[in-house]
Order: sequence, then structure tokens, then C-alpha cells
Amino acid sequence: MRVSVVGLGMIGSSMAWQLRQAEVTVSGYARRQDTIDKALDQGVIDEGSTDLATVVRGADIIVVALPIELIPRMVFQIDALLTRKTLVIDVGSVKTYIMSQIAARPLAHVDFVGGHPMAGSEKSGFEHYVQQLFVGKAFIFTYPNKHIQAIYEGVLKTLAHQLQARYLTMTALDHDRRVSAISHLPYLLSVALYNRYARQKDALSAVASTGFSGMTRIAHSDPLWGLTVAGFNAENVSKDLGEIIESLQKIKYAVDSRDVDFLLTCFNVDHEQMNPEKMNLVKNHICGYDESTI
Amino acid sequence: MRVSVVGLGMIGSSMAWQLRQAEVTVSGYARRQDTIDKALDQGVIDEGSTDLATVVRGADIIVVALPIELIPRMVFQIDALLTRKTLVIDVGSVKTYIMSQIAARPLAHVDFVGGHPMAGSEKSGFEHYVQQLFVGKAFIFTYPNKHIQAIYEGVLKTLAHQLQARYLTMTALDHDRRVSAISHLPYLLSVALYNRYARQKDALSAVASTGFSGMTRIAHSDPLWGLTVAGFNAENVSKDLGEIIESLQKIKYAVDSRDVDFLLTCFNVDHEQMNPEKMNLVKNHICGYDESTI
Repeated sequence: MRVSVVGLGMIGSSMAWQLRQAEVTVSGYARRQDTIDKALDQGVIDEGSTDLATVVRGADIIVVALPIELIPRMVFQIDALLTRKTLVIDVGSVKTYIMSQIAARPLAHVDFVGGHPMAGSEKSGFEHYVQQLFVGKAFIFTYPNKHIQAIYEGVLKTLAHQLQARYLTMTALDHDRRVSAISHLPYLLSVALYNRYARQKDALSAVASTGFSGMTRIAHSDPLWGLTVAGFNAENVSKDLGEIIESLQKIKYAVDSRDVDFLLTCFNVDHEQMNPEKMNLVKNHICGYDESTI
Repeated sequence: MRVSVVGLGMIGSSMAWQLRQAEVTVSGYARRQDTIDKALDQGVIDEGSTDLATVVRGADIIVVALPIELIPRMVFQIDALLTRKTLVIDVGSVKTYIMSQIAARPLAHVDFVGGHPMAGSEKSGFEHYVQQLFVGKAFIFTYPNKHIQAIYEGVLKTLAHQLQARYLTMTALDHDRRVSAISHLPYLLSVALYNRYARQKDALSAVASTGFSGMTRIAHSDPLWGLTVAGFNAENVSKDLGEIIESLQKIKYAVDSRDVDFLLTCFNVDHEQMNPEKMNLVKNHICGYDESTI
């Protein structure tokens, strides 16, 4: 199998590296020769070029691994360079926007399937490629119709397998709803938390520990990625934000009114049985404690 | 040096293990003989007993490593068992509550200093002790007055050093404000996010990845710990929740109104210069995109 990776950033390079381990021949495109040289040097690609036509012709699958806003235009550019039908997928974090932009114009040689590997890092660029990035992670595919699915689902299952990822398929709308909840919303919470910290960085940095770092790692994602997911998945993101704001308001109200039963229900996320003796002890302590009297 | 650790849960055992590496003699107290046996077996303590008096007498420092609500009572119990002045510290995540409860009653033999190592895990119990838990982490000490500080700061600096932790000191009020921002608030955000996920677990679990796990790990902390920090640090927690809710409302408004400039300012947490060309491209795409027309 021969895969062309268009864009050797963090995701593209990590994918190229992993595919080569599975004995796939990987051809890489980057705008700068310097990136191609480094990728060849480090064994991330078999061959590479800054000439897009050279890279994309003859591929079994072309993977467009670019930032969201550049994907549709690149797909049309590739279409103009191909001479026979070729499968093109992307790796962008929103699917409705990308699928609709691509469906809006006719394609001569490209059969496009939306792709989104649920793996990443807050770091971007070739330097930050990660070996084994996709192992055990979901790779979501969004087919424009049943016909395209019938033709390509075999090869895309193989691709997911080569990456040791889990093949999943869903509609663009389902995809965008779900990633809003498990990726875009967490990012926005992380950003809000980091900004609260940044306001008092001098006082807080000395005491912050692993729990805090874990909660704010993704706040350091490329802000332009943040902007594209907030912009191109705005309806889902807004709905999820609204829901989280409401939850936090309820928690705040319960904290203010010492509603320990509500808080316990809320905090008991694992749904295990709690020791009733311990629980009553804590409840009695909290209900008997008044900060204002200190 | 001889340290008595009262309570062999996750924190107490991790501390005992690390102190033994620094050639401190560690005596451990647990309610159950079974825990003592395991701790002896695994080399976590030098000696141990279910008899509190045996464990605490003759120590240079007694560390009360119990859940917050049990700490004050245990300090008074220890006081009744001692026959000479001994330094007692705790490891609880709130300090105003503990310091004020202990200051409210006279102590005969205990000199109490509040302690809080900024290290932990969402798991509790002896089984989950972690080697090297405190390495590089802050260990915060809260002295009731300058006199106690002058007597004990040398030995507590040594203790922090033996744990390879960073010695820090601050007032109980400062401590509680700061841990609200970097520990209690993150926990509540994590809980809210996990509960939103739990509502649609079937649809979401297949797509969740490392970013999501990082954001929800601490939601799995002992709910009784959550309840005690929310209850005994209620004023700070409520204030921080209010501030985060306001930030999220602003972000939601900016998402709804496609206010890309506000979002960029908000997302650019590293305060690095962004590539203006890329930025304008993204802005133009988002401002020209209307989801409702799809």
C-alpha cells in the first residue's frame, strides 16, 4: 500500500511514522524542503517533495493532515492534480464544516471521506510527532454516502488497523456533537481554568501540582485550532457550554447552601456505594461548620 | 530522626516509604492489623501498631495522615497520650478549618503545625501508595504563630528535604485561597465535565481520548474528599466557581456571536505572538461561515 501524507505537522508525521512500521510506503508533502529533509532523515517518510503533484499521484490513499481551515482548498487543489480516481481523507477535528465545503463543489478525481483520529497533543509541528500516537485510539470515518462507503470501507479498516487504531464510522453531525462533548468543551474549560490561574500566576505557580497540570495541558493547544473548533462547531460547543455553566451554577448554589446531599450525588461519579458511617460523619461536620464565625 | 505516621492511606504510606529511603525511622499507626502487616511486609514502615500510644510516643514528628474531618479529633486524642512536647503536623487539603478547630481547645503536649503536601492521586487507601510521590512537589506549612515557627521550621525544612519536596510556608487563609484555585476548582470542573459525559456514556466512551481522560481523572477522587474541600473551603470555592462561570459565559457569548478577536485573546494562553497571516485566514473563514445554511 502507498499512502501520501499532505502536511507533515504533528498528526501527519506521527501517522507517517506509524504507517511505515506497518510496511506501508509513505510519501510526504510539506511546503518547506527543510521539513522533508528532517522527515527523511528521521525515517518518518519513504520519500517526500515540496511538489504536491509528485506526492499525490499514484497513492492508494491521500491523507490531508492540515489545519481545518486549509483542508477544503487543499482537497480541490489535489483534485486538479490527479489523473485517476483516488481516495482522499482528512484528519480535521470538525466534520460538518469540512464535508459541506467539499460537497459544495464538484470533484473530478477525488473520492473524499472525512477522517478524524482521536489522538493529539497540545503541541504542533513536525518536531512534536509522537510514535505510537494512534495505538488503541478511535479513528472516526464519515462517509458522504453508502456508495462511497461500500467502495472504501475495506481499505480504511486496513488503514486504521495499520495505525493500531479502532475503526469507527458515524455521520458528520454525530461526530461534531460527540467531539464537542469530549474534546472541544474540555478544551474551553481548560482555557478558562488556565486564564483564572494566569491572573495570579506568581502566587499560584509554586503550589500547582499534577492535578492542575492535567487539567490545563490542553489549554496550551494551538489557539488557532481552538478558534476553528469553536467557529466551525459553534452550535454544539455553545450548547455544551450552556449545559456545563448550568451544572456549575448548581454546584455553586449547593456549596453556598451547604447542600451536602446534592454535592455527594454530583461527586459520586463512579456510582459506587459509599460507606454510610463515614458519609454521615462528613455531613455532620460540614453542616455544623460555619466559616463566617472564624 | 523518628517520624510517626498516623493513618496508612495513600498519602501516609507514600510519605512513610519516602522517609525510610532517607533513613528516617518510621512508625505507623492504622486501625487494622492487616494494614500494619502489609506495610511492614512491603517495607513501608519500620514498625507499626494498632495501639496509638505505642506509635506516637517518642516521635520527633507525628504526621496525622487522615481525612480532613478526622484530623482535629485525632490531634486531641494524640495530645492525651503524649507525655512530652511533640510536634504534630497534618496533611489535609484545607487549613483554616483545621487550624481553627485545633486552636479552639487547649493542647497539653502537642505543638501543632498545619501541613499540606501538594501531591496526591484520585485513588485512596494503602494499596495505592506511590513511591517518589512528593519529589519536586510543594509541601506547604502553616504555623499558628512566629514562636512555633522559630522552634520547628528547621526540622520541617529537613522533613521536606527528606521527601525531596519544596518547603513553602503561608498563612491558612492564603493556603485555602490558593488551593481553591489550583485544586478544588479544577476538581469541580472535572466533576461537571464527567457528569456531562456520563449522561451519554454509550455514545461518547468510544471516542474519548487522552485529552478527555486528563480532564476527568481527578473527578474520580474520593467524593468525601470533594465534600470536605467544598464544605470547609466553601467561600473560596464559591468565589472561584463564580469567576469561572463568568468566564465560560463570556466564551459562550463569543462563540454565539463569532467574536473571534475575543476568543483568540482568551485562547492564546501562552502569550506568544501568533502568525498574523494564519490568524487572518482563520478569522475570515469563520466569519464567512454560517452553520445554519448547511
